[in-house]
Amino acid sequence: MAQTMPESILDYMTRLGRAAREASRVIARASSAQKNSALLAAASALDESRAALAAANEQDLAAGRATGLEPALLDRLALTPARIDGMLEGLRQVAALPDPVGAIRDMRYQPSGIQVGKMRVPLGVIGIIYESRPNVTMDAASLCLKSGNACILRGGSEAIHSNRAIAVCIQRGLAAAGLPAAVVQVVDTTDRAAVGALISLPEFVDVIVPRGGKGLIERISRDSKVPVLKHLDGICHVYVDALAEQPKAQQIALNAKCYRYGICGAMETLLVDQAVAAAFLPAMALLYAEKGVELRGCERTCALINATPASEEDWHTEYLAPILSIRVVDGLDQAIEHINHYGSHHTDSIVTEHQGHARRFLAEVDSSSVMLNAPTCFADGFEYGLGAEIGISTGKLHARGPVGLEGLTGEKYVVIGDGQLRG
Amino acid sequence: MAQTMPESILDYMTRLGRAAREASRVIARASSAQKNSALLAAASALDESRAALAAANEQDLAAGRATGLEPALLDRLALTPARIDGMLEGLRQVAALPDPVGAIRDMRYQPSGIQVGKMRVPLGVIGIIYESRPNVTMDAASLCLKSGNACILRGGSEAIHSNRAIAVCIQRGLAAAGLPAAVVQVVDTTDRAAVGALISLPEFVDVIVPRGGKGLIERISRDSKVPVLKHLDGICHVYVDALAEQPKAQQIALNAKCYRYGICGAMETLLVDQAVAAAFLPAMALLYAEKGVELRGCERTCALINATPASEEDWHTEYLAPILSIRVVDGLDQAIEHINHYGSHHTDSIVTEHQGHARRFLAEVDSSSVMLNAPTCFADGFEYGLGAEIGISTGKLHARGPVGLEGLTGEKYVVIGDGQLRG
Repeated sequence: MAQTMPESILDYMTRLGRAAREASRVIARASSAQKNSALLAAASALDESRAALAAANEQDLAAGRATGLEPALLDRLALTPARIDGMLEGLRQVAALPDPVGAIRDMRYQPSGIQVGKMRVPLGVIGIIYESRPNVTMDAASLCLKSGNACILRGGSEAIHSNRAIAVCIQRGLAAAGLPAAVVQVVDTTDRAAVGALISLPEFVDVIVPRGGKGLIERISRDSKVPVLKHLDGICHVYVDALAEQPKAQQIALNAKCYRYGICGAMETLLVDQAVAAAFLPAMALLYAEKGVELRGCERTCALINATPASEEDWHTEYLAPILSIRVVDGLDQAIEHINHYGSHHTDSIVTEHQGHARRFLAEVDSSSVMLNAPTCFADGFEYGLGAEIGISTGKLHARGPVGLEGLTGEKYVVIGDGQLRG
Repeated sequence: MAQTMPESILDYMTRLGRAAREASRVIARASSAQKNSALLAAASALDESRAALAAANEQDLAAGRATGLEPALLDRLALTPARIDGMLEGLRQVAALPDPVGAIRDMRYQPSGIQVGKMRVPLGVIGIIYESRPNVTMDAASLCLKSGNACILRGGSEAIHSNRAIAVCIQRGLAAAGLPAAVVQVVDTTDRAAVGALISLPEFVDVIVPRGGKGLIERISRDSKVPVLKHLDGICHVYVDALAEQPKAQQIALNAKCYRYGICGAMETLLVDQAVAAAFLPAMALLYAEKGVELRGCERTCALINATPASEEDWHTEYLAPILSIRVVDGLDQAIEHINHYGSHHTDSIVTEHQGHARRFLAEVDSSSVMLNAPTCFADGFEYGLGAEIGISTGKLHARGPVGLEGLTGEKYVVIGDGQLRG
C-alpha cells in the first residue's frame, strides 16, 4: 500500500499522528472524572444532534443507493433512531465502567528491600480501520478515551458524512471536559492511501485494530509496521461429548449456529462423539431443517443423516451462512486435535457433564475463548462483561479474545525503594 | 536475511519448527510435577557432566583464541565452575517457582448466567537467538519449559560445542521426566541462515526473543514474520528532584551509573532540578571522578562542574561505559518531557520525598519500569522476584520490562455455562 501513497496524504496522516501522540500524553494522565465527563457530554451532544445526524446519514445513504451499494451494506450504514439510542447507551455504559488506568497489582517487597509491582497504563495511540457501520466511530472512540488512549479513526468512505457528524459530537464532549481535540481524530478523507499511511507510522501509532473483511485485515497485517490486534476467521466448533446431556446439547448446537449466521462466534463445524452420534444427529438434523441450515458431513455423518459429503475445504471454511459441517469423531482426543488443526483459535465449546473431559478440553484447546456447556455465539465483549469490545483478537501475545478496556492497556513495572542500592 | 537462505537450512529449521510445534502441545499439558522433575534431572545431569562441559568449552575457547576473539567475548564464553554452579542454582530456582500455567482469574457470573474468567496458558513455541554466553542456553530452556512452551535455541556459533554439551544435559532431564526431546531444541549448525529461517516460520514459532547487539536485534525486528519481544537501547535516567534527600540521591546516582557500566539498566543520563543542582552536582562530580567516570553536561551543568559540553547526540546515547551525560532541568515537567523524548522506554527513576512529584513521575513516565528512590540498575528479573528473566521488553504490547514466566504465557477466556443460550 505504502508505495503508491501520494505525498500529501502521508503528510496529512503524519500531522494526525503527531497530534495524536501529543494528545495521548494528556489523556493518559486525565482523571477518571474528566474522562467520564467527556463521555457523558458527548452523549448529550449526540442526543441533541439527532436531526443533524439523520441529515448527514441521509447523504451517505443517498450516495450509497446511487452507486448501487448492496442492501446489506446500506442496512449497516443506516443510523436509525434505535442505533443512535444504542450509541448513547454505549457511552453511558463505558462511562460507568471502572477506570483501568493506574491500577497497581502485586506490589511486593523483594529481598533487597525494594517493592516491585505492576501498574496498568494506556498503550498510547490506537489506529482503528473499519468499514460501513458509523456507530463503530462512537464505540471505538469511547473505549479508547476511557482507557486513556488517543485514537485515529478511519471509517469507510461510504460513511464519511455520518462519521463527520459523529465526530462533531465527540469534539463537543472533549471540549466540555477540557481535553484536547486530538484525543479523537476522524480521518477526513476518503483516499484509500490514508490506510497505508496510518499503518506505516510506528513512531506515532502504537496499535492498529482493523475491523472488516478478511482481505482488508490480511493486507493490513502483512503491510503494517505497527502491531495489529485482529482476528481473521471465526471457524468455531461445538464438540458434543459422549457424556453430554441430550436436550442441553441440542439447544446449544442450535443456538451456536442459528443465533446469527453472520457473526464471527457462530459455530461452523459440529463435532460429535461416535458413541452418541446415532442418537444426537437425527434429532439435530430435524432442528436444522426447520431453520433451513444446509448440512455437510463426514462419511459417518452421511450414514446417519441426510447431508452432502464434506470436502477437506469445508473443515477450513467460515461460512457465515446457514451452512454447517459435521464430523463424527472417535472421542475427546480427536475432537481437540481437529479443533487445534482446523480451527482459527477463536472460540470453541465442549458440551459434556464429564468433569475430566471438560478440564482437558478447556486446558488443551488452543483458542482465545474456550467454553463448556455454552454456545460459541456468546463470544462477545458485552456478554463477557467487558462493557463493550473494540474487536476480537486471536493472536497469542497481549490480549486474546474480545478486547475491551483492559486489552487497550498494558502494564509497566513500578519499583519503590528508599535508597536501596544494588550489589 | 531470508532471500539468501540455502534451501537445506530452511528445510532443517522447518523440521525443528514442526517438531517444536508438536512437542509444544505435550509440554503445554504437562503437570507441574513433571516439568519440575525435568528441571531437577537436568540439574543432576549438568552436575555430573562438569568434565565433559569443561572439555567442550575448551574447544570453543581454543577456537575463539585462534580466531582472535576479543578478551571480553572470551570471558563471556567461558563456562567456569562458578558459572556452572550458577546454572544449577538457576534450574533449582525455576523448579521452585510457582507454575503459571492454568491459573484462572476473575471467574465471574454474567447477567446471562454464564461464568467468564481468564486462564493463563503457554504461548507455544519460543525462538531464542543469542550470542556468546552458553549459560543462556540453560536459563532460556528452563524458563520456557516451566512456562509450558517448547523452544528453539540459536546460540552464537563461537559457543557451539558448549551449547551442544549443555543440550545433552537438557535432553537427559527431558527423558527422565518422560517429555519429548523436541521440547528443547538447540540449533546444531553455525550457518547464519538459520536465524533468517527461524524468524520466517510463523506457523511453527510464536515469539522470537533476540538477545545481543543492537544491530542484530534491529535486523531481526525488521525481517521477522514472528512477533519479537525485545529492547534495543537502555537509555536510563535518574531525575534528582528538588525535594530529594541529598545523601540518598548521591548514593542512588552513583550506584545507578557505577554498579556495572555494561548492563542495560545502567543510568546514562542524570537529570537534576535546578533548585538543587548547585549543591548536588559538585558533590557528585567528586564521587564520579573517584570512579573515573567522564562527564558531559548541558550549559548549566558546565557552569557548576568540570564537564565536556554535551551534544544533542549525547542525550540519545547508551554509552555502556564510564561516561555520563548530565542535564539541569527546570523541574518535574521538563524531566518527564526529557525522558519521554530521549529515553528508550526502558527504566527511569525519580529521587524525591515529594509525594505528588513521585506520583506524577510514576504515572507519566512512559517506560517499562519506573522507579522511586531506587537506582535503575535494579532493572532485572531476579531483583524483581521473577526468579530469572528471558530478556527485557520495551514494547507496549504483551510484556513490558523484565520478562519471566508470566511474560512467556498469555491468557485465554474460559466460559462455563450450563446450557444458557444467547438472545
